[in-house]
Amino acid sequence: MEKESRNVVRGIKSPATAQLHSSCHTQHPALLETYMPGPHRTKDIPKNISSFYSALTQELASTFQSKQEQQPLMANPDPEVSGGGEQKAAQGENAEAGKSAVPTYQQKAKARLLLLLSYISGDMEVFAEWMKKQFFLLQLLDWVLRGAAQVMFVNNPLSGLVIFAGLILQNRWWALNGFVGTLFATISALILQQSRGAIAAGLYGYNGILVGLLMAVFSNAGDWYWWLLLPNIVMSMTCPIVSSALASINSRWDLPVFTLPFNILVCLHMVATGHYNHHFPQVLIQPRTELANITWAEVNVAKLFTAVPVGIGQVYGCDNPWTGGIFMVALFISSPITCAHATIGSAVGMVSGLALAAPFEAIYFGLWGYNCVLACIAIGGMFYALTWQVHLLAITCAFFCAYLGSAIANVMSTFGLPACTWPFCLSALTFLLFTTETNTIFKLPLANVAYPERNLRFFWKLRKKEKLEREEKERDEEKWRAKEQELLGNDKEVLRMERMDGKEKGDGMEGKQINKMMIREEEMMEVALGAVSSMAENV
Amino acid sequence: MEKESRNVVRGIKSPATAQLHSSCHTQHPALLETYMPGPHRTKDIPKNISSFYSALTQELASTFQSKQEQQPLMANPDPEVSGGGEQKAAQGENAEAGKSAVPTYQQKAKARLLLLLSYISGDMEVFAEWMKKQFFLLQLLDWVLRGAAQVMFVNNPLSGLVIFAGLILQNRWWALNGFVGTLFATISALILQQSRGAIAAGLYGYNGILVGLLMAVFSNAGDWYWWLLLPNIVMSMTCPIVSSALASINSRWDLPVFTLPFNILVCLHMVATGHYNHHFPQVLIQPRTELANITWAEVNVAKLFTAVPVGIGQVYGCDNPWTGGIFMVALFISSPITCAHATIGSAVGMVSGLALAAPFEAIYFGLWGYNCVLACIAIGGMFYALTWQVHLLAITCAFFCAYLGSAIANVMSTFGLPACTWPFCLSALTFLLFTTETNTIFKLPLANVAYPERNLRFFWKLRKKEKLEREEKERDEEKWRAKEQELLGNDKEVLRMERMDGKEKGDGMEGKQINKMMIREEEMMEVALGAVSSMAENV
Amino acid sequence: MEKESRNVVRGIKSPATAQLHSSCHTQHPALLETYMPGPHRTKDIPKNISSFYSALTQELASTFQSKQEQQPLMANPDPEVSGGGEQKAAQGENAEAGKSAVPTYQQKAKARLLLLLSYISGDMEVFAEWMKKQFFLLQLLDWVLRGAAQVMFVNNPLSGLVIFAGLILQNRWWALNGFVGTLFATISALILQQSRGAIAAGLYGYNGILVGLLMAVFSNAGDWYWWLLLPNIVMSMTCPIVSSALASINSRWDLPVFTLPFNILVCLHMVATGHYNHHFPQVLIQPRTELANITWAEVNVAKLFTAVPVGIGQVYGCDNPWTGGIFMVALFISSPITCAHATIGSAVGMVSGLALAAPFEAIYFGLWGYNCVLACIAIGGMFYALTWQVHLLAITCAFFCAYLGSAIANVMSTFGLPACTWPFCLSALTFLLFTTETNTIFKLPLANVAYPERNLRFFWKLRKKEKLEREEKERDEEKWRAKEQELLGNDKEVLRMERMDGKEKGDGMEGKQINKMMIREEEMMEVALGAVSSMAENV
Repeated sequence: MEKESRNVVRGIKSPATAQLHSSCHTQHPALLETYMPGPHRTKDIPKNISSFYSALTQELASTFQSKQEQQPLMANPDPEVSGGGEQKAAQGENAEAGKSAVPTYQQKAKARLLLLLSYISGDMEVFAEWMKKQFFLLQLLDWVLRGAAQVMFVNNPLSGLVIFAGLILQNRWWALNGFVGTLFATISALILQQSRGAIAAGLYGYNGILVGLLMAVFSNAGDWYWWLLLPNIVMSMTCPIVSSALASINSRWDLPVFTLPFNILVCLHMVATGHYNHHFPQVLIQPRTELANITWAEVNVAKLFTAVPVGIGQVYGCDNPWTGGIFMVALFISSPITCAHATIGSAVGMVSGLALAAPFEAIYFGLWGYNCVLACIAIGGMFYALTWQVHLLAITCAFFCAYLGSAIANVMSTFGLPACTWPFCLSALTFLLFTTETNTIFKLPLANVAYPERNLRFFWKLRKKEKLEREEKERDEEKWRAKEQELLGNDKEVLRMERMDGKEKGDGMEGKQINKMMIREEEMMEVALGAVSSMAENV
Repeated sequence: MEKESRNVVRGIKSPATAQLHSSCHTQHPALLETYMPGPHRTKDIPKNISSFYSALTQELASTFQSKQEQQPLMANPDPEVSGGGEQKAAQGENAEAGKSAVPTYQQKAKARLLLLLSYISGDMEVFAEWMKKQFFLLQLLDWVLRGAAQVMFVNNPLSGLVIFAGLILQNRWWALNGFVGTLFATISALILQQSRGAIAAGLYGYNGILVGLLMAVFSNAGDWYWWLLLPNIVMSMTCPIVSSALASINSRWDLPVFTLPFNILVCLHMVATGHYNHHFPQVLIQPRTELANITWAEVNVAKLFTAVPVGIGQVYGCDNPWTGGIFMVALFISSPITCAHATIGSAVGMVSGLALAAPFEAIYFGLWGYNCVLACIAIGGMFYALTWQVHLLAITCAFFCAYLGSAIANVMSTFGLPACTWPFCLSALTFLLFTTETNTIFKLPLANVAYPERNLRFFWKLRKKEKLEREEKERDEEKWRAKEQELLGNDKEVLRMERMDGKEKGDGMEGKQINKMMIREEEMMEVALGAVSSMAENV
Repeated sequence: MEKESRNVVRGIKSPATAQLHSSCHTQHPALLETYMPGPHRTKDIPKNISSFYSALTQELASTFQSKQEQQPLMANPDPEVSGGGEQKAAQGENAEAGKSAVPTYQQKAKARLLLLLSYISGDMEVFAEWMKKQFFLLQLLDWVLRGAAQVMFVNNPLSGLVIFAGLILQNRWWALNGFVGTLFATISALILQQSRGAIAAGLYGYNGILVGLLMAVFSNAGDWYWWLLLPNIVMSMTCPIVSSALASINSRWDLPVFTLPFNILVCLHMVATGHYNHHFPQVLIQPRTELANITWAEVNVAKLFTAVPVGIGQVYGCDNPWTGGIFMVALFISSPITCAHATIGSAVGMVSGLALAAPFEAIYFGLWGYNCVLACIAIGGMFYALTWQVHLLAITCAFFCAYLGSAIANVMSTFGLPACTWPFCLSALTFLLFTTETNTIFKLPLANVAYPERNLRFFWKLRKKEKLEREEKERDEEKWRAKEQELLGNDKEVLRMERMDGKEKGDGMEGKQINKMMIREEEMMEVALGAVSSMAENV
């Protein structure tokens, strides 16, 4: 991210990129609109476009370097650990490279594309910075959109917009409820003075949208039953309280709260009212009490394939495959890795359903997919740095999640409740609590979690730094040895060499004994430290 | 508390207060009896009264200054953080004030009343000190009475006595079971060598009384089924073990255990035996499976109003409104804030029941109130320092608790269980885990929790101290600046002023750059600290 | 353990013990075979025996002193805290004792027996060291056998072998499933790069054997339904992940994970498939809905007595009393204390069943025993050092566990689930979280847990050391006082004595005031420390 965004900042000053911006505009007018939502849109865009852009780019250039707020709940927009010196060196190199090479047309085009991508992909940091200067309602809209996308761990208002489009395609009443939920959850977080950075990343909104949507989905009173907005608003506004409380617990293990607040609050509402309620009746869910009628000849392969996008859609409670497809586009905009894992997760869920002899209807309906989608995204690159081992772990987690999904669905049906996303939460938490001695499975500190691609870069940087340090250390040791040898006289040298020889080969009795004593001391040290640490643990 | 109790101690030595004591006596003979329970009561009180009082007051004066034990579970009788120097100054001022002013009759009467109140209100600290010198059975009785009141977070033996009176009014068999439960829970805590301070505050008794009462309430074997005392004693004696285990977990987040041990143990007993048990049958509780017949015309407003005291009574499983009223008196004796919040909580529960279309019978029976009562007391001034924001938070918590109550009641009925006070525990824990960036919502350290009025004083003191320190710091800085300016010569002065000017306005390039560098350094520091702390968290 | 094992090591070098080995062989050929499992067995044992033994003993002597790996999950094979100096002294004493005394025949026989016992009892540490040099499949077999025994907290491959014999006696299909479960759980732990020490102690296998066994026991598809091995392998391989995740949580309170992974995974599998599943149907379990027909005249006392071994057998899901008896032998081999507590626990469970009016069939079937067996073992000497108070605590825990068992069985039956070992896990965790101010209940640090006899030795050593330190401190103080008195002149001495006198008696006004000030300072210190620690807790 560092490099691209720096390119962005510097590129703006050159005439080539000034042109690029206008070409951008002509190519993607729809995207431009997202940059200037609502009140900022003018009829005479063509006229003002250059002045607008120069103003925008200057703002971006200045704001990008300003300090960014920390987001304690889930993501941190500034996962930079390398020092300022390194940065300057990199900048210097870049500048030199820019000077020496004369860019061809293809290079320019590629640069433009990358620039555009850097604007709309990832977490749209540049846009977020620009937004900070806008007036409150615009900011709130940004937060709401980011909240809508954060359900899938995507911190991107454009994805959020696409997702809302998908929701409207599915059911306008549900979409309205989702919007109300996100809005009021965000407002409640503001009232309760939660961390501004977390609110701006949409981390207080995603539970709200799920609460709003699913309360509408599971209501038995039919669409456009306006009274439903009342508990919807109440429950959404309770979200930040439950989120904050759960974060107090989970932060002890550096774990996110996932969609636990949504699960708790929707289950709360549904079981508090139930199917037999006068004001807010819920759909009737009953436990399975007889053998399902499954004939393998009846399986519909086409429907099995549509189950994959439907599974992704079911994350938001939508059963329309097109809506699912739109959601996949929303994911792809922000992070292709996320999109890939979502698809894999949904497929794993579908296969698990077949393996556990689930009724085909449930599989077609995507009920086996949505938890696996979320679990696969969370493990596959979001909270772990993506390596091959982590990729396999993500698939394992998706299978585990499917199994758990079936179990929880059966248990919850006893109380007339749906499984919600409990299976995802529990399986992902289990796999994040899991520890191993291998260094190919690296769990990111929660404060450094952004999106898979950036996490990967963070991981590589860390690795590189570690490697450099190790090499430097080795070089230092070699130097030190060389110096020592030079300084020492001949007679001492011979003596020392003999002793070292004895130590290394382990033949000399003396060396052996010394070694043994050292090992003993180390052991004792270890035991003592263990005792101290366990005491500290107890205290 | 400091001031009043000091007045008490010093006031005793003056003839005016000696008279006051006797007038006290004549006005409130009932109260006096509670000071001399059982064996201490004599027929010839009028004769011995003066000598008795002088002995008592001397004892009080000496004992009050002695060190008080710490109570790790919930409350600390000594929440003093201010230094001894401050105290002496306060004493000095008081003494001077006392000398200069000649007290009028009204002032004297007011002083007398305050003195009396300081004896019986709050946590009756002076009495507790006096009790420490008494023989064991008397002490045990004190602990049992305090335990009975601690259900409502009241550490006051007088309230406990009033509560037992209310229980006897309701049902003598239940009252007996409650007494047995409290007694054996306290004895068990003594055997298991738990903290003496916590035992003396009744913190091991309140789960016992609830276990005893509710086991009797939910038994299907009818009153005076003497075998019931056996599991009652066993379960009460297990209370301290479960309390201690839960405290080990909750103390990590500085949270109290509330009535969780009671909930666990009563549910354990009920579900282990069940309705179809030969020895200990339980009342039959079944899930709702059809639409309740609610006609709004049938609502009985008078009954709705009595639902408020009944809701308070249901904390102890009592449905008699008079018993509830007596409990309100018991709360008022110790802490009017607690009493007010109990009433508000019960009312909130009643309203929530109506909003969620609950059967009227359940609302009249107080089932919607008792959890809200406890939740509202806990949040409203007990574990948070009472401000307007906290008051609103307490009401929010009461609503959340009512919702949760309905949900948990429905879930538990599947297993034939009542909701007990699970809703209160879960909602209060959630609201205590909740964190915010505002400083008007101040959660007291668990070791400093006493009763709302005292907590408030502690909070004010802390605020005052902080303010003083801030002011002092500012004054110091000003002084330092003044000195610096005096010391500096003219030419240097001019140069420095210019530079400072640049810094403040942010115009000078130099100043700006320095500022930037400083900000960068701070950022790096923050990132580094964040990494370290997250590592520490992980370790 | 220190002493015996040192005897072993030294004894090997003398001709007397060389003879002992061969006599060992003639007396216990079966045992010898366990030392040379599978591929190592040769037809010409009699010829090679002496050379084999000398090689073995030399290996043992060298390996025993090598560093042992740490086992973070549950047990540590090296709970040595005493320094090396102490050891040497002990060795010196031993050597002297050996020189001076000429051993009689009985002494020799006793020494031989102790030597043999030290090889096969406890955690067979010497054997474990020898195993480290063997090839991989043999090691794996060792780990699997230890895993089988670790269900009962026994880290002993011989016990594991005996347990497998008992399982085969019960049902060969179940035994196969158990073996497959242990094997794949251990392999999975190796793949997931878990701690080698923990794997070698069987700590990743015991959940696997239970998963394998119980999935076979509760399957409704009948024996030798080969497809069952598929979910069996999947679930076993998930064990290490769940174990590791739970250990991350429990380690915060220095608690073991017990059989929680097994409980979670078996319940997961059963509820995910259920009774009405095409592929993996489960046995039908339904809640009790009517009064059980209990006539006290019908009680069969003989069956009640066999319920004790059956209860021990039910830990592995076996209802054959002979199998239970074999398991008792397996326990006795490793640790008689464990065996005793297992028997007590089973008896307590049986009595509790009668007290709570359980159907006799359930009691005869051992369903009331197995949880109590495990709970009684865990508390009685395994995680607490065994004292009389701990013994009583273990019995209390067994009663609590029986109660909890009945409760959980009723709750779980609502979902068609058996109680598994949830009651044991929850009750043992509760009793391990319990804290008290007495020093006769000493919870071992998790890293020092081995087996009851060794834990006891560790506890005694610690006590002795503490006592010695206290005595030394007192002696030092006395010396210091004596020296001081010598050094001081006469006039100063008198003055000092007077002052001290005042301090001690508390008569002198000066001394009293100083005392008071000191107490005040201490109090403030305490308050300050309390505040700091509570802040640290909050942070």
